[in-house]
Amino acid sequence: MTEVVGATELVNDLAKRSGQAAAALALLSRADKDAALHAMADALVAASAQILAANAEDVRRGRESGTSDALIDRLQLTDARIGAIADQLRNVAGLPDPIGEVVRGYTMPNGVRVQQIRVPMGVVGIIYEGRPNVTVDGAGLCLKSGNAVLLRGSASAAASNAALVSVLRDTLNGCGLPADAIQGVPADDRSTVTALLHARGLVDVVIPRGGAGLIQHVVNNASVPVIETGVGNVHVYVDESADQQMALEILRNSKVRRPSVCNAAETLLVHRSVSAEFLPKAAKVLQDEGVVLHGDDDTRRIVGDSVVPATDEDWDTEYLSLDLAVGVVDSLDAAVAHIRAHGTGHTEAIVTSNIDAARRFTRQVDAAAVMVNVSTAFTDGGEFGFGAEIGISTQKLHARGPMALPELTTTTYLVQGEGQIRGVS
Amino acid sequence: MTEVVGATELVNDLAKRSGQAAAALALLSRADKDAALHAMADALVAASAQILAANAEDVRRGRESGTSDALIDRLQLTDARIGAIADQLRNVAGLPDPIGEVVRGYTMPNGVRVQQIRVPMGVVGIIYEGRPNVTVDGAGLCLKSGNAVLLRGSASAAASNAALVSVLRDTLNGCGLPADAIQGVPADDRSTVTALLHARGLVDVVIPRGGAGLIQHVVNNASVPVIETGVGNVHVYVDESADQQMALEILRNSKVRRPSVCNAAETLLVHRSVSAEFLPKAAKVLQDEGVVLHGDDDTRRIVGDSVVPATDEDWDTEYLSLDLAVGVVDSLDAAVAHIRAHGTGHTEAIVTSNIDAARRFTRQVDAAAVMVNVSTAFTDGGEFGFGAEIGISTQKLHARGPMALPELTTTTYLVQGEGQIRGVS
Repeated sequence: MTEVVGATELVNDLAKRSGQAAAALALLSRADKDAALHAMADALVAASAQILAANAEDVRRGRESGTSDALIDRLQLTDARIGAIADQLRNVAGLPDPIGEVVRGYTMPNGVRVQQIRVPMGVVGIIYEGRPNVTVDGAGLCLKSGNAVLLRGSASAAASNAALVSVLRDTLNGCGLPADAIQGVPADDRSTVTALLHARGLVDVVIPRGGAGLIQHVVNNASVPVIETGVGNVHVYVDESADQQMALEILRNSKVRRPSVCNAAETLLVHRSVSAEFLPKAAKVLQDEGVVLHGDDDTRRIVGDSVVPATDEDWDTEYLSLDLAVGVVDSLDAAVAHIRAHGTGHTEAIVTSNIDAARRFTRQVDAAAVMVNVSTAFTDGGEFGFGAEIGISTQKLHARGPMALPELTTTTYLVQGEGQIRGVS
Repeated sequence: MTEVVGATELVNDLAKRSGQAAAALALLSRADKDAALHAMADALVAASAQILAANAEDVRRGRESGTSDALIDRLQLTDARIGAIADQLRNVAGLPDPIGEVVRGYTMPNGVRVQQIRVPMGVVGIIYEGRPNVTVDGAGLCLKSGNAVLLRGSASAAASNAALVSVLRDTLNGCGLPADAIQGVPADDRSTVTALLHARGLVDVVIPRGGAGLIQHVVNNASVPVIETGVGNVHVYVDESADQQMALEILRNSKVRRPSVCNAAETLLVHRSVSAEFLPKAAKVLQDEGVVLHGDDDTRRIVGDSVVPATDEDWDTEYLSLDLAVGVVDSLDAAVAHIRAHGTGHTEAIVTSNIDAARRFTRQVDAAAVMVNVSTAFTDGGEFGFGAEIGISTQKLHARGPMALPELTTTTYLVQGEGQIRGVS
């Protein structure tokens, strides 16, 4: 218990310092913020040697504890990767400043002027796994949107994150900005996560970035507001009217382009009337790419024993690997019902030539993004033209779909007059 | 425990039925929804006798258990009040339909069309106290915004709420719409509140409407998304440059117009340089209206013993009564610091003639609404021209300030193309 109390005091103290920094950040001009972002980018490149040394320590610890090559690859930094991270800061500097945008404005009959204006959230917590680039990305996006950030990375990247945060804080200081705008939260054990999730009134929002386990832990344990991100049990439905060549290309791109990301397809549903024709072609295309198919009885009857029998769990699994669940459905309505039962509200796609089928699918499927005749891989802040992405929200409150700078803001109503008072009614 | 499990099963079953109704509601045209709203209004008036009989039962129970006259007044219905409730439904029918609005839309370089479209949340839970009109208001706003609603009113209004919900459900049936779009949640004990707050995946958002105790209970115990509403520890700051006559009128209106509502002023802060001149005038105006002043030492020295000494708690109290905390501050910065420490982020006002003071106050105070030279009473969905209000959000996520129809919606990205796939980068 003493440990948890200690973590609470520690995190609350960090959050209060963030709050003080946030009050100053809210007043910065775009020019001030962009100058700091460019200075941060330059400083990271200049400090490459010290960052790589810290990173090497994390990599060594990871290897010693038997971390997989894939995870080591996500952890590892190089000069080129530090350059890319710095470029991303410069990219954020080039994006429009969301702060101060007048979202709505009008004049009341009594002459009172009302403006709804975009302002920073205040203090943003980011809880994430593995990748050190999230440290810099998160810091850059929060600075540009006028928010102070509390960065709680994973213990496995502790030395890298500490080195990165140190460089960023020194740079803020050098620019005359409050260093506490960017703070790391110690990652020795989970108690600091718990403390961050309960810093009500001190932290305005927590964004988890990572696997389903992390996100569920955050969502279920937070008393501060949370934006749920990223879990994508993504379906591609091939309608009876689909252009089958188009369907094959969309399917391949959706599944194998980058199987480990949240917009990758995890389940294929095929209309029964075209299943005998389409499934053998789809199986060949996907199996040639190394995809393991987990099919229902119909699929196995059509394609054969190369298809692993699908279990109940397969329909709810976000594989993030070269696996795909495959099912035959009797109708578009059956596909929609399957998706409503098993989808995670991330991205759902239909391939169809029938305008009415497209309309019914898009109105009845309940997801952040619904694709008609395009790859699911397009659900991405960069592809949507946002210039950056802090995550993909799968919740309905506040932000849904790819989140960038505007999604890190809130609004306030500025109400101005000359002494107007309100009548009794 | 069996009781809680029973409540969980009961509420989850209701929520699943809401979800099925929501899928149908999302497809309704504005004409269908408006026709149902008018039919509901007519049906309420036609069923007045049965509603009043049920309400009389609640009032009798309330009187027997010693409920205050003020609360009985909030509970009690009359023919005129039922008429006003029905009129509010007709008013909602006249508002624009938020569903289907294209919030943003553009074409990617590869020809893919992206549209961000307003869609219903799905299932909305409303937890509220006392007043039966919230039952109908909430049902009407949710229907118009395409959401199914779970109405968890208070036990004190159980018979009235049951009668109202029964009329509304019968009307939906008569219009060919799913009756389960509007469902009451039994209010026998708190277990149904707990169940509603944990119906994750079944309920998309819960909105509490009521006193600070209810709202804190909901916010602290919910695992479903919540929109925090309504607690207003509202400040009026009188700057050294204020037009004092204007300040007196704004102060009186902000405090005494309707002391029981959340936008009423609860603390007056006065710049030291004008305190000796302004406070005696303010005290007279307010005391003539029956306001009890709770002042700091400076205020008591200036105004005298008619001012009750303010305790530490006074600065954090939302009185909702004819009481006002009064303090003298050394500067605008001190006023801002006091408000940042004690405010609830609802509404904060400055009275000033100095353009720089107005700018600094509005940029540094962190609230849903910031008033310059107008009464705090204007923070209201009706006054802002929204035509309706489901509550005033004091949180930063999703909605901030008065909430109406658009705040009961989310968005989805509709992405359409002709077989486009994404490159490797």
